[in-house]
Amino acid sequence: MTESTKEPEKDFNTNEEAISRIRALRKKGADPLSIARKIKEGDRVALSQGITLIESKSPVHQSQARAIIEHCIGTKQDSLRLGITGVPGVGKSTFIERLGKHLTGAGHRVAVLAVDPTSGVSGGSILGDKTRMQELVQDNRAFIRPSPAGDSLGGVARKTREAVILCEAAGYDVIIIETVGVGQSETAVHSMVDFFLLLKLAGAGDELQGIKRGIMEMADAIVINKADGSNLKNAQKARVEFKRALHLFPPKENQWIPEVLTASALEDEGIQQVWDLIGSFASETRASGWFSRKRLEQNKHWLLQTIDEQLKLRFYRNPKIKEALEEQLRLVEENKTSPVTAAYYLLELER
Amino acid sequence: MTESTKEPEKDFNTNEEAISRIRALRKKGADPLSIARKIKEGDRVALSQGITLIESKSPVHQSQARAIIEHCIGTKQDSLRLGITGVPGVGKSTFIERLGKHLTGAGHRVAVLAVDPTSGVSGGSILGDKTRMQELVQDNRAFIRPSPAGDSLGGVARKTREAVILCEAAGYDVIIIETVGVGQSETAVHSMVDFFLLLKLAGAGDELQGIKRGIMEMADAIVINKADGSNLKNAQKARVEFKRALHLFPPKENQWIPEVLTASALEDEGIQQVWDLIGSFASETRASGWFSRKRLEQNKHWLLQTIDEQLKLRFYRNPKIKEALEEQLRLVEENKTSPVTAAYYLLELER
Repeated sequence: MTESTKEPEKDFNTNEEAISRIRALRKKGADPLSIARKIKEGDRVALSQGITLIESKSPVHQSQARAIIEHCIGTKQDSLRLGITGVPGVGKSTFIERLGKHLTGAGHRVAVLAVDPTSGVSGGSILGDKTRMQELVQDNRAFIRPSPAGDSLGGVARKTREAVILCEAAGYDVIIIETVGVGQSETAVHSMVDFFLLLKLAGAGDELQGIKRGIMEMADAIVINKADGSNLKNAQKARVEFKRALHLFPPKENQWIPEVLTASALEDEGIQQVWDLIGSFASETRASGWFSRKRLEQNKHWLLQTIDEQLKLRFYRNPKIKEALEEQLRLVEENKTSPVTAAYYLLELER
Repeated sequence: MTESTKEPEKDFNTNEEAISRIRALRKKGADPLSIARKIKEGDRVALSQGITLIESKSPVHQSQARAIIEHCIGTKQDSLRLGITGVPGVGKSTFIERLGKHLTGAGHRVAVLAVDPTSGVSGGSILGDKTRMQELVQDNRAFIRPSPAGDSLGGVARKTREAVILCEAAGYDVIIIETVGVGQSETAVHSMVDFFLLLKLAGAGDELQGIKRGIMEMADAIVINKADGSNLKNAQKARVEFKRALHLFPPKENQWIPEVLTASALEDEGIQQVWDLIGSFASETRASGWFSRKRLEQNKHWLLQTIDEQLKLRFYRNPKIKEALEEQLRLVEENKTSPVTAAYYLLELER
């Protein structure tokens, strides 16, 4: 299964595992440069190690991770980053497994990552259990990484963005980022992918009510999954309704007209059509120059977002601030100070 | 018209006016404490001066403004803060004028403020022209303040929040905050008021399509305005449709069930009913304790938001950062560095 012979591949979902893996790294005298070199040679163990460093909370590991990223960036430019979202129960895992097998079968190398800021609370609702993609997990052209442990959305999104860079450097040319279709994570995923796919089910007449408007607007395609058996007719009906609903939105900047397809991941129906559609999107937008322009915009956004996130982190991590913040919140609560004065007091304190 | 005899009241919509007003203040040796004292005596000139200091970009004025706010906070606890939103053309000014006259007639003192981050671009689309509320402007129980000049939404929202404190200290017990129903300003206004009112028109069958879902969900009441003449029937029909649409939303935290009313600001019909509804809301939520809990949450939110805003401002204002940011954005663009490395480089630079 692994391309490296040094040790069997292992992914980590707990801090303890990550720490012991990093200790092992240190003992072996591993340095960022050599990890980066191995990642670029396609070494899956090194890739896992790199992502573990990205996910670590330790400042030392984070600076090592940054060095690795710096060595890896810009190595792979012809990848496709695909976001897949949908509410629990829509069949994301099966769909991704099926699509992944199609892709590896066609010679692609596929990495599957996840953005799931709720996993810390829910115990890892997506990708947490790798047995959910049993076939793909055994495919040596595929790399599956569970969602990083519970954290803020900003933190999880940053880690996933950085993991994408390493996966691309390791030679994976299709990066699938999975997210649950609830909450704020879709916006984060949308800001890091080239193509955004929304999985839906044909419902009992409530096709339109259940749609989170914002997500529909972001989608480059909607796939009605589980279009099989007695559900097929409903799925086809839902397809027409979704197509109609999409017409209510203003046209996309890239001139792409979102498509609605039906598929059955279970029966392996319609999966190739989904990939063909993504293929046309990629060639159209690459030809128009929009593909690379969007990636550039995403990178700039990522820079600014990282700064905002770190400014806050630096501020609120300061022990002086932590203590004073509680007191100021109490004073605000008792109407003894204004929120603005309290804020400025805290800001002065940090200087 | 003014309660102070020192000089006639005058509002400012340009920086030049504000600066000359502040110069005048300085000549008279005005200090924050004496302005705050006068504001609490109900002096409208001092109130205008205080708000001008809040709106000034000068750090000196801002610290004076903070001192004034500190002296004014907590003086008035039984005020009602009312947000009114609606797209241009819905008749906001006429409605607010009519409602304002009802309120001053009933013994209330009414302040009208505005959050309109677009006013800098559009030349002041709301409240910019005080002639739009001619009757209310001449009412000495009312205080009308045009929207502060163009700025970021965050800045405008902060200024309006602070102006609310001063207005309440000056004895105004109903604070109306007007916003245009487009863009992001409604969320900001919603986060600073007790009751959020959405003004709508009966349209040509497109009642539901035109609704920004987020705004509908925020509304504590919807008023179909211009329910008069040949429009009356349509307005009544729209009322039923909106009531039905509101049922699709999950119940509000405060157990309040949003109401839909019709009104004609022009013919002065239904205005008292709107105020009665707001009155029931206030007494119900005051009795349940929700009213003050929400204000407390708003204050905490305000504190954290001020910190976030200032952290960013401090960072991006730094001339070293300004220069380096451009360079780093270029390097990111040329794929010579990663967005995260660039961000950390800039963050280190600031230290």
